[in-house]
Amino acid sequence: MDPVEAHLARVLAAIRPVEPARLGLEAAEEAVLAADATAATPLPSFDNSSMDGYAVHASDIAAATDLASVTLPVTDQVPAGDTRAVTVAPGTCVRIMTGALLPGGADAVVPVELTDGGTDRARFSQPVPKGYSIRRRGDDVAEGDVLLLAGTRLGPAQIALLAASGHGSVLARAAPRVAVIATGNELSEPGSPLVPGQIWESNTYMLAAAVRQAGGSATRHRAGDDPETVLALIGDLSEQADLLITSGGVSMGGEHDVVKAALSGSGAGTITFRKVAMQPGMPQGFGVVGPDQTPILTLPGNPVSAFVSFWLFGRPALDALQGLAPRLQPARRAELTNPVRSPPGRRSFLRGVLGPDGATVTPLTGQGSHQLGALARANALIVVPEQMASMAAGDVADVISLP
Amino acid sequence: MDPVEAHLARVLAAIRPVEPARLGLEAAEEAVLAADATAATPLPSFDNSSMDGYAVHASDIAAATDLASVTLPVTDQVPAGDTRAVTVAPGTCVRIMTGALLPGGADAVVPVELTDGGTDRARFSQPVPKGYSIRRRGDDVAEGDVLLLAGTRLGPAQIALLAASGHGSVLARAAPRVAVIATGNELSEPGSPLVPGQIWESNTYMLAAAVRQAGGSATRHRAGDDPETVLALIGDLSEQADLLITSGGVSMGGEHDVVKAALSGSGAGTITFRKVAMQPGMPQGFGVVGPDQTPILTLPGNPVSAFVSFWLFGRPALDALQGLAPRLQPARRAELTNPVRSPPGRRSFLRGVLGPDGATVTPLTGQGSHQLGALARANALIVVPEQMASMAAGDVADVISLP
Repeated sequence: MDPVEAHLARVLAAIRPVEPARLGLEAAEEAVLAADATAATPLPSFDNSSMDGYAVHASDIAAATDLASVTLPVTDQVPAGDTRAVTVAPGTCVRIMTGALLPGGADAVVPVELTDGGTDRARFSQPVPKGYSIRRRGDDVAEGDVLLLAGTRLGPAQIALLAASGHGSVLARAAPRVAVIATGNELSEPGSPLVPGQIWESNTYMLAAAVRQAGGSATRHRAGDDPETVLALIGDLSEQADLLITSGGVSMGGEHDVVKAALSGSGAGTITFRKVAMQPGMPQGFGVVGPDQTPILTLPGNPVSAFVSFWLFGRPALDALQGLAPRLQPARRAELTNPVRSPPGRRSFLRGVLGPDGATVTPLTGQGSHQLGALARANALIVVPEQMASMAAGDVADVISLP
Repeated sequence: MDPVEAHLARVLAAIRPVEPARLGLEAAEEAVLAADATAATPLPSFDNSSMDGYAVHASDIAAATDLASVTLPVTDQVPAGDTRAVTVAPGTCVRIMTGALLPGGADAVVPVELTDGGTDRARFSQPVPKGYSIRRRGDDVAEGDVLLLAGTRLGPAQIALLAASGHGSVLARAAPRVAVIATGNELSEPGSPLVPGQIWESNTYMLAAAVRQAGGSATRHRAGDDPETVLALIGDLSEQADLLITSGGVSMGGEHDVVKAALSGSGAGTITFRKVAMQPGMPQGFGVVGPDQTPILTLPGNPVSAFVSFWLFGRPALDALQGLAPRLQPARRAELTNPVRSPPGRRSFLRGVLGPDGATVTPLTGQGSHQLGALARANALIVVPEQMASMAAGDVADVISLP
């Protein structure tokens, strides 16, 4: 059996980032910048007032006090957005609003709270230093500065910086397109009637949601147990997607493993199927298919196995497709409240609940690879190393926190 | 000035959860369940095999050993999805695949690895206990069990449990619709040419991204400094949105505060404008507008002020609209690597970078409320309490971790 890390390394070695595209700012949300973004102009692009008040020559009010106030005529007013070239003559002042262009000649702004707020004439009873309440051109970002480095994921603050710097679009890698395929004659659509022997299909819903949560876009597909149909579907989708993920049809049993049958020796691509030393999720496959060498992950069909496999191999693959270093597992440790068991030689990922303080973790009842009830209540996976067959209550375990 | 908590309490007191709707499973991703979801059928809905192997009467192979193996005729085979009513007669066996309906009469499945894998006849060289490799009907979820409680956010695992239990749709609260409005004659579209006095508009891009990150949907709008136009826009949007968020036009200065002018005493709704004891973001407003009493948050226009205000008041409002208890701020503490200052009487939210281990936090250069450069590099807000004017390097501060 291969170690988890060996399979992950095989996956990551075959994945190339998706082609960058020029995206508008809304389309670029949560995308990953593909080239450094630089400032074509300084930010702010002009000297402006940080307060509502009066633009003055500071020297005119240098001697102002409560007892000996200075009154200046108000010769103009400049609201934000006013693009006129206004000037403040010595011995006068100009009313100015927050964000407005600083008039020529002015070297300070006196906040309205420090004045009588007059409209024709304004009275000043204290001095302010030169530069007071002025935001200088370029005091946030200088022209030519790198705003954001390639590889930055664009959240709200990064999008805002790009917008404020005048970038209407950026070169970025958008959400990778992932086609999710469930196989099996037993699958029926949730909401439809069921007869014994059939089950409601859940893996495409789960994996599509997980793909979107990890920053991809997803389409869902389903096929029965006919290898030729599955092969044709995989072929079609390989030309429309950046990554294919199948579930089911890869167990060890034989003639009914439709994904194995479809992809083994068909010339469709280069896929290897392996046992990975983990539980759940031992049977895994990975390779590339179609003319674009589209990567394909073939996950086991039990839903908890598919979930854990996606977490270990699919999420890092999505990071790599976006040009990011694969996220490390949130590394935390917590004390087990109850004992756990694990098959020797395989690393277990047991479903558990981390306590509110993160100090303890409780393994859930129902650890079968088909048991979604426990998975849906879990907020963590408890990791039991290959060489351990059990851990006791009070032992400290590695824990992966789930979103 | 009002404390932050008083303003937040005012906001939350006025917000009602959005109406739930019946959503298909893909539409329900990341939505919040509005009623308990229960299991109409047990899960699994029929006894089935957890392995590829042979369904047997366990008593037939109870004496099997390597030296005295038992050979049974294979009378049928049952793949997953086969809905026939197959029976295993005593002294015979049936080939069975993972997930397939257990044939009548069988009380154990022998994994193929423990046999010779024969097709007409199969040889068994060890016994298995009754129930071996069988998943019993209902061993994951019993009929009538609560699958998920109202108030659960539907991530991949929860969606999977709903699908596997046959729910094609659920009653849930979808993403609240938020209309984001920026005001100001100075605003120009990113990507367009600019003249001094104008700035590229960034707040709608930032706030829309922040709304989506917090689980809402967003539309972006812009208006100049004409109060009647702003009032008409707010009126229209109040009938299409679950929450309005404006930025700008609420400072203390007077006639150019367009949002204040539009909403004060107009009969459009009930809005109060207040100073909140925080920095950035002192001028805040909240109320309800329009026939549906749509809540409206009026945030200050400086981009960092708007960002911090959204974090403190907008995110909890989105939680409340989804019927969730407002998320607590991720409560963590970290040691300052450098000193910080804060205006007395106001709580500061300074932009900083948490170290990789989360133990230290470094305040960034450029803490002005217009300085997006530092915000875009920050991964944390450093909280300085109202009663402190400074904190020293080595002091431990409360820190809000940003996504």
